[in-house]
Amino acid sequence: MSKLMNIIRARRSTRAFRGELPPKEQILQLVEAAEWAPSGMGKFLWHFTVVYSADKSLKLARAVDAAMNRGPDYNFYGAPVNIIISYKRDERHALPDGAAAMENLLLMATELGLGSCWINQLRDCCDDPGVRALLTGYGVPEDHIVVCSAAIGYIDKETPAKPRRADVMTWTE
Amino acid sequence: MSKLMNIIRARRSTRAFRGELPPKEQILQLVEAAEWAPSGMGKFLWHFTVVYSADKSLKLARAVDAAMNRGPDYNFYGAPVNIIISYKRDERHALPDGAAAMENLLLMATELGLGSCWINQLRDCCDDPGVRALLTGYGVPEDHIVVCSAAIGYIDKETPAKPRRADVMTWTE
Repeated sequence: MSKLMNIIRARRSTRAFRGELPPKEQILQLVEAAEWAPSGMGKFLWHFTVVYSADKSLKLARAVDAAMNRGPDYNFYGAPVNIIISYKRDERHALPDGAAAMENLLLMATELGLGSCWINQLRDCCDDPGVRALLTGYGVPEDHIVVCSAAIGYIDKETPAKPRRADVMTWTE
Repeated sequence: MSKLMNIIRARRSTRAFRGELPPKEQILQLVEAAEWAPSGMGKFLWHFTVVYSADKSLKLARAVDAAMNRGPDYNFYGAPVNIIISYKRDERHALPDGAAAMENLLLMATELGLGSCWINQLRDCCDDPGVRALLTGYGVPEDHIVVCSAAIGYIDKETPAKPRRADVMTWTE
């Protein structure tokens, strides 16, 4: 199997992280990978906000819980790092561009041996006042929506692969 | 630079393809890579429709032109293969899931030395009757929307890298 296919197939949604921070150098590589994703019409109107702090990550999780009633255990799976992908509001390519960037970021985390989990809740609650105040404090531009975020850290518990569905391809020639 | 970062940074939007069909085996690898993308809530409600024919690809491009008035040169850059990523209609994660799958597909094409270009037009016109009739004939499920498609083939003319914007990251700790 090719090197890339191995990485693609090895990526998992980590749901239990250890508390230690990975090296900053590795986190910067994740952002670099994300930046090299394609962007519709070459707009690249995204922003990457790195929360490199277990305390600040937990504070954000608590605000998401307050906005969406996710329950007291909602904590981004204990990840000490979160990377928020935001995009200029009202841009047609916001979701696809942000998602492509996220996939690059997750693959790079996999290659580096870091755990990662794609988090969708901030897409739903980024305009809640309590959440937005934190986002703004952390550096998310005020005219941006959040597309998604990634929980990042060392893996505490491995996640098994989810089987893929059969019959997802049609071939015509 | 890591192997993966090299692939991520080498991916380009090819805009001039040669006419020959790449081996089927390689096209199947692209779909396999796409299938191993993450999917929100583990739904995986996507479908991959491979159009492995220069004639059928051109016919689809002509239908898109008819629907959107793109002009007589609109031909998916002459790519003999197109892979259509569709997703069950009215699903919240359709765009991000489809885009993550697309990014895997494009990276795999890059590793294999194939050219690729992310095409957005089918997202806009997949419900045009002329376009939809072709899509259905090629195998796109009738209850799906098209998220995007990829033009695939051998590269006729290299594309230079687009510079990335500076100041797209904020770091807080």
